[in-house]
Amino acid sequence: MKKVLVVGATGVVGQAVADTLAEGHEVVRSSRTDGERADISDPSSVRALFERIGPVDAVVCCAGAVPFKPLPELTTDDYRAGLEDKVLGQVNLVTEGLRHVRDGGSFTFITGVLAREPIATGVAASMANGALESFVTAAATELPRGLRINAVSPSVLVEAESYHPFFPGFPQVPAEDVARAYVRSVDGVETGKVFRV
Amino acid sequence: MKKVLVVGATGVVGQAVADTLAEGHEVVRSSRTDGERADISDPSSVRALFERIGPVDAVVCCAGAVPFKPLPELTTDDYRAGLEDKVLGQVNLVTEGLRHVRDGGSFTFITGVLAREPIATGVAASMANGALESFVTAAATELPRGLRINAVSPSVLVEAESYHPFFPGFPQVPAEDVARAYVRSVDGVETGKVFRV
Repeated sequence: MKKVLVVGATGVVGQAVADTLAEGHEVVRSSRTDGERADISDPSSVRALFERIGPVDAVVCCAGAVPFKPLPELTTDDYRAGLEDKVLGQVNLVTEGLRHVRDGGSFTFITGVLAREPIATGVAASMANGALESFVTAAATELPRGLRINAVSPSVLVEAESYHPFFPGFPQVPAEDVARAYVRSVDGVETGKVFRV
Repeated sequence: MKKVLVVGATGVVGQAVADTLAEGHEVVRSSRTDGERADISDPSSVRALFERIGPVDAVVCCAGAVPFKPLPELTTDDYRAGLEDKVLGQVNLVTEGLRHVRDGGSFTFITGVLAREPIATGVAASMANGALESFVTAAATELPRGLRINAVSPSVLVEAESYHPFFPGFPQVPAEDVARAYVRSVDGVETGKVFRV
Protein backbone atom coordinates (compact mmCIF):
# COMPACT_ATOMS: atom_id res chain seq x y z
CA MET A 1 0.00 0.00 0.00
CA LYS A 2 1.42 3.39 -1.03
CA LYS A 3 2.20 5.86 1.74
CA VAL A 4 1.05 9.35 0.73
CA LEU A 5 1.84 12.63 2.48
CA VAL A 6 -1.05 15.08 2.05
CA VAL A 7 0.03 18.66 2.77
CA GLY A 8 -2.73 21.18 3.41
CA ALA A 9 -5.02 18.42 4.60
CA THR A 10 -7.33 20.75 6.53
CA GLY A 11 -8.48 22.78 3.52
CA VAL A 12 -11.50 22.04 1.35
CA VAL A 13 -9.36 20.44 -1.35
CA GLY A 14 -6.97 18.81 1.11
CA GLN A 15 -9.75 17.10 3.07
CA ALA A 16 -11.32 15.75 -0.10
CA VAL A 17 -7.95 14.56 -1.38
CA ALA A 18 -6.98 12.93 1.92
CA ASP A 19 -10.38 11.27 2.30
CA THR A 20 -10.33 10.00 -1.29
CA LEU A 21 -6.76 8.69 -1.05
CA ALA A 22 -7.50 7.07 2.33
CA GLU A 23 -9.20 4.32 0.35
CA GLY A 24 -6.29 2.13 -0.72
CA HIS A 25 -3.43 4.31 0.54
CA GLU A 26 -1.74 4.99 3.87
CA VAL A 27 -2.37 8.71 4.26
CA VAL A 28 -0.29 11.04 6.44
CA ARG A 29 -2.16 14.31 6.94
CA SER A 30 -0.14 17.50 7.41
CA SER A 31 -1.03 21.16 7.77
CA ARG A 32 0.17 24.28 9.53
CA THR A 33 -2.20 23.63 12.44
CA ASP A 34 -3.25 19.96 12.53
CA GLY A 35 -1.90 16.46 12.06
CA GLU A 36 1.82 16.31 11.26
CA ARG A 37 2.42 20.04 11.55
CA ALA A 38 4.67 21.81 9.07
CA ASP A 39 5.07 25.23 7.46
CA ILE A 40 6.02 24.43 3.87
CA SER A 41 7.40 27.94 3.33
CA ASP A 42 10.16 27.05 5.81
CA PRO A 43 12.63 24.46 4.41
CA SER A 44 13.72 23.38 7.91
CA SER A 45 10.10 22.68 8.87
CA VAL A 46 9.66 20.56 5.72
CA ARG A 47 12.93 18.73 6.44
CA ALA A 48 11.78 17.95 9.98
CA LEU A 49 8.44 16.70 8.66
CA PHE A 50 10.09 14.21 6.30
CA GLU A 51 12.47 13.04 9.03
CA ARG A 52 9.53 12.42 11.39
CA ILE A 53 7.30 10.52 8.99
CA GLY A 54 9.98 8.53 7.12
CA PRO A 55 9.98 7.44 3.46
CA VAL A 56 6.82 8.00 1.42
CA ASP A 57 5.66 6.99 -2.06
CA ALA A 58 3.91 10.23 -2.87
CA VAL A 59 3.77 13.82 -1.71
CA VAL A 60 0.64 15.73 -2.64
CA CYS A 61 0.13 19.39 -1.81
CA CYS A 62 -3.16 21.26 -1.47
CA ALA A 63 -1.69 24.33 0.25
CA GLY A 64 -0.52 27.76 -0.83
CA ALA A 65 -1.65 31.30 -0.09
CA VAL A 66 -1.55 34.29 -2.44
CA PRO A 67 -2.78 37.87 -1.88
CA PHE A 68 -5.71 39.17 -3.95
CA LYS A 69 -5.76 42.93 -4.68
CA PRO A 70 -6.41 45.24 -7.61
CA LEU A 71 -3.27 45.58 -9.74
CA PRO A 72 -2.51 49.21 -8.82
CA GLU A 73 -2.47 48.22 -5.13
CA LEU A 74 -0.24 45.16 -5.49
CA THR A 75 3.26 45.84 -4.17
CA THR A 76 6.47 43.95 -4.78
CA ASP A 77 6.02 42.45 -1.31
CA ASP A 78 2.56 41.16 -2.27
CA TYR A 79 3.91 39.39 -5.34
CA ARG A 80 6.81 38.09 -3.27
CA ALA A 81 4.43 36.72 -0.61
CA GLY A 82 2.61 34.62 -3.20
CA LEU A 83 5.87 33.34 -4.68
CA GLU A 84 7.31 32.51 -1.25
CA ASP A 85 4.24 30.66 0.00
CA LYS A 86 2.49 28.97 -2.92
CA VAL A 87 5.52 28.54 -5.21
CA LEU A 88 8.64 28.09 -3.08
CA GLY A 89 6.59 26.38 -0.35
CA GLN A 90 5.60 23.61 -2.76
CA VAL A 91 9.07 23.54 -4.31
CA ASN A 92 10.49 22.96 -0.81
CA LEU A 93 8.55 19.68 -0.82
CA VAL A 94 10.66 18.63 -3.81
CA THR A 95 14.04 19.99 -2.71
CA GLU A 96 13.65 18.49 0.77
CA GLY A 97 11.60 15.49 -0.31
CA LEU A 98 14.00 14.22 -2.98
CA ARG A 99 15.81 12.11 -0.39
CA HIS A 100 12.60 10.80 1.23
CA VAL A 101 10.35 9.78 -1.67
CA ARG A 102 10.85 6.18 -2.75
CA ASP A 103 11.94 5.17 -6.27
CA GLY A 104 9.11 5.65 -8.75
CA GLY A 105 7.27 7.93 -6.36
CA SER A 106 5.58 11.21 -7.19
CA PHE A 107 4.94 14.82 -6.29
CA THR A 108 1.61 16.54 -7.01
CA PHE A 109 1.24 20.31 -6.69
CA ILE A 110 -1.79 22.57 -6.69
CA THR A 111 -1.94 25.48 -9.15
CA GLY A 112 -5.16 26.93 -10.54
CA VAL A 113 -7.06 28.23 -13.53
CA LEU A 114 -5.66 31.75 -13.02
CA ALA A 115 -2.36 30.67 -14.55
CA ARG A 116 -4.05 31.06 -17.93
CA GLU A 117 -7.42 32.77 -17.36
CA PRO A 118 -7.34 35.97 -15.30
CA ILE A 119 -9.83 37.47 -12.88
CA ALA A 120 -9.87 40.95 -11.33
CA THR A 121 -7.51 41.18 -8.33
CA GLY A 122 -5.84 37.91 -9.34
CA VAL A 123 -2.54 39.03 -10.87
CA ALA A 124 -0.34 37.75 -8.02
CA ALA A 125 -2.18 34.42 -8.10
CA SER A 126 -1.76 34.17 -11.86
CA MET A 127 1.97 34.79 -11.47
CA ALA A 128 2.37 32.13 -8.79
CA ASN A 129 0.34 29.55 -10.72
CA GLY A 130 2.27 30.22 -13.92
CA ALA A 131 5.55 29.69 -12.09
CA LEU A 132 4.31 26.38 -10.71
CA GLU A 133 3.05 25.04 -14.04
CA SER A 134 6.33 25.77 -15.80
CA PHE A 135 8.27 24.34 -12.87
CA VAL A 136 6.34 21.07 -13.09
CA THR A 137 6.84 20.84 -16.87
CA ALA A 138 10.60 21.31 -16.51
CA ALA A 139 11.25 19.43 -13.26
CA ALA A 140 9.63 16.28 -14.66
CA THR A 141 12.50 15.98 -17.15
CA GLU A 142 15.22 16.06 -14.49
CA LEU A 143 13.82 14.10 -11.54
CA PRO A 144 15.98 11.08 -10.66
CA ARG A 145 14.96 7.46 -9.82
CA GLY A 146 11.78 7.40 -11.87
CA LEU A 147 10.17 10.09 -9.73
CA ARG A 148 7.22 11.88 -11.33
CA ILE A 149 5.67 15.32 -10.81
CA ASN A 150 2.34 16.78 -11.90
CA ALA A 151 0.10 19.70 -11.00
CA VAL A 152 -3.64 19.85 -10.46
CA SER A 153 -5.18 23.09 -11.72
CA PRO A 154 -8.77 23.55 -10.58
CA SER A 155 -11.28 26.22 -11.48
CA VAL A 156 -13.15 27.81 -8.56
CA LEU A 157 -14.57 25.21 -6.15
CA VAL A 158 -18.30 24.65 -5.77
CA GLU A 159 -17.66 24.62 -2.03
CA ALA A 160 -15.84 28.00 -1.99
CA GLU A 161 -19.00 30.09 -2.22
CA SER A 162 -17.38 33.33 -1.06
CA TYR A 163 -15.11 33.18 -4.14
CA HIS A 164 -17.89 32.71 -6.69
CA PRO A 165 -18.51 36.44 -7.34
CA PHE A 166 -14.83 36.85 -8.27
CA PHE A 167 -15.08 34.08 -10.90
CA PRO A 168 -18.06 35.23 -13.00
CA GLY A 169 -19.15 32.51 -15.38
CA PHE A 170 -16.20 30.28 -14.57
CA PRO A 171 -16.97 26.56 -14.28
CA GLN A 172 -17.44 25.57 -10.62
CA VAL A 173 -15.80 22.29 -9.77
CA PRO A 174 -16.66 19.99 -6.83
CA ALA A 175 -13.72 19.18 -4.54
CA GLU A 176 -14.25 15.48 -5.24
CA ASP A 177 -13.44 16.07 -8.94
CA VAL A 178 -10.23 17.79 -7.88
CA ALA A 179 -9.42 14.85 -5.61
CA ARG A 180 -9.84 12.48 -8.57
CA ALA A 181 -7.11 14.37 -10.45
CA TYR A 182 -4.77 13.85 -7.49
CA VAL A 183 -5.47 10.11 -7.60
CA ARG A 184 -4.63 10.09 -11.31
CA SER A 185 -1.32 11.79 -10.54
CA VAL A 186 -0.44 9.50 -7.61
CA ASP A 187 -1.49 6.16 -9.11
CA GLY A 188 -1.11 6.86 -12.84
CA VAL A 189 1.99 6.95 -15.02
CA GLU A 190 1.99 10.54 -16.26
CA THR A 191 4.61 13.15 -15.42
CA GLY A 192 5.12 16.82 -16.24
CA LYS A 193 1.38 17.27 -16.69
CA VAL A 194 -1.03 19.93 -15.54
CA PHE A 195 -4.41 18.30 -14.88
CA ARG A 196 -7.07 20.95 -15.49
CA VAL A 197 -10.22 20.35 -13.48
CA MET B 1 8.13 60.71 -31.22
CA LYS B 2 7.65 58.05 -28.53
CA LYS B 3 10.11 58.05 -25.64
CA VAL B 4 11.14 54.48 -24.79
CA LEU B 5 13.10 53.29 -21.77
CA VAL B 6 15.23 50.25 -22.67
CA VAL B 7 16.33 48.35 -19.57
CA GLY B 8 19.21 45.91 -19.98
CA ALA B 9 20.48 47.92 -22.94
CA THR B 10 24.03 46.53 -22.73
CA GLY B 11 23.08 42.88 -23.37
CA VAL B 12 22.91 41.20 -26.77
CA VAL B 13 19.13 41.55 -26.92
CA GLY B 14 19.10 44.97 -25.28
CA GLN B 15 21.59 46.47 -27.74
CA ALA B 16 19.65 45.13 -30.70
CA VAL B 17 16.37 46.40 -29.26
CA ALA B 18 17.77 49.83 -28.42
CA ASP B 19 19.45 50.18 -31.83
CA THR B 20 16.30 49.08 -33.66
CA LEU B 21 14.02 51.36 -31.65
CA ALA B 22 16.46 54.29 -32.07
CA GLU B 23 15.02 54.65 -35.56
CA GLY B 24 11.83 56.63 -34.98
CA HIS B 25 11.89 56.66 -31.16
CA GLU B 26 13.66 58.62 -28.45
CA VAL B 27 15.54 55.85 -26.64
CA VAL B 28 16.77 56.06 -23.04
CA ARG B 29 19.28 53.26 -22.41
CA SER B 30 19.54 51.83 -18.92
CA SER B 31 21.52 49.00 -17.34
CA ARG B 32 23.21 48.10 -14.08
CA THR B 33 26.52 49.46 -15.33
CA ASP B 34 25.97 51.91 -18.20
CA GLY B 35 23.70 54.72 -19.36
CA GLU B 36 20.94 55.58 -16.90
CA ARG B 37 22.04 53.16 -14.20
CA ALA B 38 19.48 51.15 -12.26
CA ASP B 39 19.16 47.81 -10.51
CA ILE B 40 15.66 46.63 -11.38
CA SER B 41 15.61 44.16 -8.48
CA ASP B 42 15.63 47.18 -6.12
CA PRO B 43 12.31 49.13 -6.21
CA SER B 44 13.97 52.31 -4.91
CA SER B 45 16.53 52.17 -7.72
CA VAL B 46 13.70 51.81 -10.27
CA ARG B 47 11.80 54.68 -8.65
CA ALA B 48 14.87 56.92 -8.84
CA LEU B 49 15.36 55.97 -12.50
CA PHE B 50 11.83 57.04 -13.43
CA GLU B 51 12.16 60.27 -11.45
CA ARG B 52 15.40 61.12 -13.28
CA ILE B 53 14.21 60.43 -16.82
CA GLY B 54 10.64 61.72 -16.54
CA PRO B 55 7.52 60.42 -18.31
CA VAL B 56 7.94 57.79 -21.02
CA ASP B 57 5.65 56.16 -23.57
CA ALA B 58 7.08 52.69 -23.27
CA VAL B 59 9.23 50.62 -20.95
CA VAL B 60 10.94 47.63 -22.50
CA CYS B 61 13.05 45.20 -20.53
CA CYS B 62 15.78 42.92 -21.82
CA ALA B 63 17.27 42.08 -18.39
CA GLY B 64 16.89 39.31 -15.88
CA ALA B 65 19.27 36.71 -14.46
CA VAL B 66 18.42 33.15 -13.41
CA PRO B 67 20.72 30.38 -12.10
CA PHE B 68 21.26 27.26 -14.22
CA LYS B 69 21.99 24.02 -12.32
CA PRO B 70 20.91 20.37 -12.40
CA LEU B 71 17.63 19.94 -10.52
CA PRO B 72 19.10 18.00 -7.58
CA GLU B 73 21.54 20.88 -6.93
CA LEU B 74 18.98 23.69 -7.11
CA THR B 75 18.22 25.10 -3.67
CA THR B 76 15.31 27.21 -2.54
CA ASP B 77 17.69 30.18 -2.65
CA ASP B 78 18.50 29.46 -6.30
CA TYR B 79 14.83 29.47 -7.27
CA ARG B 80 14.33 32.59 -5.18
CA ALA B 81 17.23 34.35 -6.91
CA GLY B 82 15.60 33.83 -10.31
CA LEU B 83 12.22 35.01 -9.06
CA GLU B 84 13.72 38.08 -7.37
CA ASP B 85 15.80 39.18 -10.35
CA LYS B 86 14.05 38.19 -13.56
CA VAL B 87 10.44 38.19 -12.25
CA LEU B 88 10.14 40.79 -9.49
CA GLY B 89 12.79 42.95 -11.17
CA GLN B 90 10.62 43.31 -14.26
CA VAL B 91 7.46 43.61 -12.17
CA ASN B 92 9.10 46.53 -10.34
CA LEU B 93 9.12 48.34 -13.69
CA VAL B 94 5.31 48.11 -13.65
CA THR B 95 4.68 48.84 -9.97
CA GLU B 96 7.03 51.83 -10.03
CA GLY B 97 6.39 52.77 -13.65
CA LEU B 98 2.60 52.98 -13.43
CA ARG B 99 2.82 56.65 -12.46
CA HIS B 100 5.43 57.49 -15.11
CA VAL B 101 4.19 55.85 -18.31
CA ARG B 102 1.91 58.08 -20.36
CA ASP B 103 -1.70 57.19 -21.23
CA GLY B 104 -1.81 54.46 -23.87
CA GLY B 105 1.80 53.51 -23.19
CA SER B 106 3.21 50.04 -22.81
CA PHE B 107 5.45 47.63 -20.94
CA THR B 108 7.35 44.83 -22.69
CA PHE B 109 9.05 42.07 -20.69
CA ILE B 110 11.51 39.40 -21.67
CA THR B 111 10.70 35.76 -20.90
CA GLY B 112 11.95 32.81 -22.92
CA VAL B 113 11.20 29.47 -24.55
CA LEU B 114 11.96 27.60 -21.31
CA ALA B 115 8.56 28.62 -19.93
CA ARG B 116 7.12 25.81 -22.04
CA GLU B 117 10.01 23.77 -23.43
CA PRO B 118 12.57 22.58 -20.88
CA ILE B 119 16.31 22.02 -21.13
CA ALA B 120 18.64 20.30 -18.66
CA THR B 121 19.66 22.66 -15.79
CA GLY B 122 16.85 25.05 -16.75
CA VAL B 123 14.20 24.43 -14.09
CA ALA B 124 14.68 27.75 -12.27
CA ALA B 125 14.57 29.59 -15.59
CA SER B 126 11.41 27.75 -16.60
CA MET B 127 9.79 28.74 -13.31
CA ALA B 128 10.71 32.41 -13.70
CA ASN B 129 9.56 32.56 -17.32
CA GLY B 130 6.27 30.85 -16.49
CA ALA B 131 5.61 33.38 -13.74
CA LEU B 132 6.27 36.25 -16.15
CA GLU B 133 4.03 34.92 -18.92
CA SER B 134 1.08 34.44 -16.58
CA PHE B 135 1.72 37.84 -15.01
CA VAL B 136 1.57 39.51 -18.42
CA THR B 137 -1.64 37.69 -19.37
CA ALA B 138 -3.34 38.78 -16.16
CA ALA B 139 -1.88 42.28 -15.73
CA ALA B 140 -3.06 43.28 -19.19
CA THR B 141 -6.67 43.01 -17.99
CA GLU B 142 -6.17 45.39 -15.06
CA LEU B 143 -3.80 48.09 -16.31
CA PRO B 144 -5.37 51.58 -16.17
CA ARG B 145 -5.34 54.42 -18.75
CA GLY B 146 -5.10 52.22 -21.82
CA LEU B 147 -1.69 50.93 -20.80
CA ARG B 148 -0.63 47.70 -22.50
CA ILE B 149 1.76 44.91 -21.53
CA ASN B 150 3.33 42.08 -23.54
CA ALA B 151 6.25 39.70 -23.27
CA VAL B 152 8.81 38.65 -25.84
CA SER B 153 9.80 35.00 -25.52
CA PRO B 154 12.86 34.12 -27.60
CA SER B 155 14.48 30.77 -28.25
CA VAL B 156 18.27 30.66 -27.80
CA LEU B 157 20.03 33.50 -29.63
CA VAL B 158 22.24 32.91 -32.66
CA GLU B 159 24.70 35.29 -31.00
CA ALA B 160 24.80 33.38 -27.66
CA GLU B 161 27.11 30.66 -28.90
CA SER B 162 28.12 29.43 -25.46
CA TYR B 163 24.47 28.52 -24.81
CA HIS B 164 23.98 26.49 -28.00
CA PRO B 165 25.08 23.13 -26.51
CA PHE B 166 22.41 23.49 -23.81
CA PHE B 167 19.65 23.97 -26.41
CA PRO B 168 20.14 20.93 -28.66
CA GLY B 169 18.08 21.23 -31.81
CA PHE B 170 16.26 24.33 -30.60
CA PRO B 171 15.71 27.03 -33.24
CA GLN B 172 18.40 29.72 -32.98
CA VAL B 173 17.03 33.20 -33.39
CA PRO B 174 18.99 36.32 -34.42
CA ALA B 175 18.78 39.23 -31.95
CA GLU B 176 17.33 41.41 -34.72
CA ASP B 177 14.27 39.12 -34.92
CA VAL B 178 13.82 39.49 -31.16
CA ALA B 179 14.12 43.27 -31.55
CA ARG B 180 11.34 43.21 -34.15
CA ALA B 181 8.99 41.60 -31.60
CA TYR B 182 9.71 44.46 -29.20
CA VAL B 183 8.81 46.98 -31.93
CA ARG B 184 5.52 45.13 -32.46
CA SER B 185 4.79 45.40 -28.75
CA VAL B 186 5.74 49.09 -28.48
CA ASP B 187 4.11 50.38 -31.67
CA GLY B 188 1.31 47.83 -32.14
CA VAL B 189 -2.07 47.54 -30.46
CA GLU B 190 -1.83 44.14 -28.77
CA THR B 191 -1.83 43.53 -25.03
CA GLY B 192 -1.53 40.48 -22.79
CA LYS B 193 0.41 38.64 -25.50
CA VAL B 194 3.53 36.52 -25.42
CA PHE B 195 5.40 37.01 -28.69
CA ARG B 196 7.34 33.81 -29.37
CA VAL B 197 10.44 34.37 -31.46
